[in-house]
Amino acid sequence: MYVLYATRGSGNCFKPFLTLCQLSISFSVLEVDVLKGETRGDAFRRINPAGAVPYLMTTQGVGLGESNAMLWLIADGSSLMPQTALERAKSLQWMFFEQSKLEPHISPARFLGHIAPHLGKGREADIAAWREKARAGLATLDAHLAGNAFMLGDRYGITDIALYGYVHVGDEAGIAMQDFPSVCSWMERVREQPGYVPLSELCSTAKPFAAGHAA
Amino acid sequence: MYVLYATRGSGNCFKPFLTLCQLSISFSVLEVDVLKGETRGDAFRRINPAGAVPYLMTTQGVGLGESNAMLWLIADGSSLMPQTALERAKSLQWMFFEQSKLEPHISPARFLGHIAPHLGKGREADIAAWREKARAGLATLDAHLAGNAFMLGDRYGITDIALYGYVHVGDEAGIAMQDFPSVCSWMERVREQPGYVPLSELCSTAKPFAAGHAA
Repeated sequence: MYVLYATRGSGNCFKPFLTLCQLSISFSVLEVDVLKGETRGDAFRRINPAGAVPYLMTTQGVGLGESNAMLWLIADGSSLMPQTALERAKSLQWMFFEQSKLEPHISPARFLGHIAPHLGKGREADIAAWREKARAGLATLDAHLAGNAFMLGDRYGITDIALYGYVHVGDEAGIAMQDFPSVCSWMERVREQPGYVPLSELCSTAKPFAAGHAA
Repeated sequence: MYVLYATRGSGNCFKPFLTLCQLSISFSVLEVDVLKGETRGDAFRRINPAGAVPYLMTTQGVGLGESNAMLWLIADGSSLMPQTALERAKSLQWMFFEQSKLEPHISPARFLGHIAPHLGKGREADIAAWREKARAGLATLDAHLAGNAFMLGDRYGITDIALYGYVHVGDEAGIAMQDFPSVCSWMERVREQPGYVPLSELCSTAKPFAAGHAA
């Protein structure tokens, strides 16, 4: 059974969580508290030396980092996968776009402006710059979704999950999402998919990582 | 036949170029001059609205961005591909690592410190910071390669090409590569692979993009 190491509220952690839920795959979640510094602690680094979540442990005990890479393992052979070589390449084009043009901007603007605003004091200029860069990426996404129901056309899949992870919390990053109407319509379609669960469910059944790893 | 839009000396452009060469696939290169601003010009943006190279056009006229995504299309079905779901996920884990922990640091340090040093004046602190971040990524890579001949174990493939693109020009970014001996040994093994061609060959047979797209 998969074990997902995750932190509450994380868009990256949500991606493998949503995929596992939608495919009805058995898994458990261990909650690693970023705000308490647990991801950087020795106990967690013995599991993932990179000290980052999400981290996925397979039944065979192989650990995997990088949220978008996890989707390719979890969904392998399922209807959520791209089906042709060109679809696989297009899926990856958008996943690399997400990790360079959206996540690096939405994530810190949301973290310092919404999740831990006490840490964002004095960082207002950085937050504003991240928002502007995120808006540029969202404009590219909006143009693409104006002509496509889902990221690869007519069919929902892991590419949508990869993009949705941070895009759907863009409002918490201080971005006026109504400026991107095709993105908003797509987000509604994603939420209508079978087995959809909201981000708030991510750690609802989690056990605390620390409890099992006292120093 | 594939058409690769590329700029001279680019580690990202080198990745699809090397893959095409090693698989003996027919293609042509059109050289888009970044230093002259051609990637940002209207003529090129009509081909790739993102205004970035590399950009790959398939025989069917489908355009593809993101260097690492291109490898999954070009090498599909070949011996350079990862073979199992876990190998594919591990390959992607390292490709996302490359695009977040190596390329964003090696590339600008090399560009402003080596390729266009006149643009790097006054940016010395940024360049030093990029080098330090790149060294952290290279240390992770070095630890991995201490126990593996290639990125996924015993067999050379697209994961090696994706990592090699920028790592092999780390010295031009001002990084003492001898500090990473397992990386250096791996780079030698990559250069011994059948069909290997150096980065200097990237635009050796290219036609200039501008010549075919006068305003």
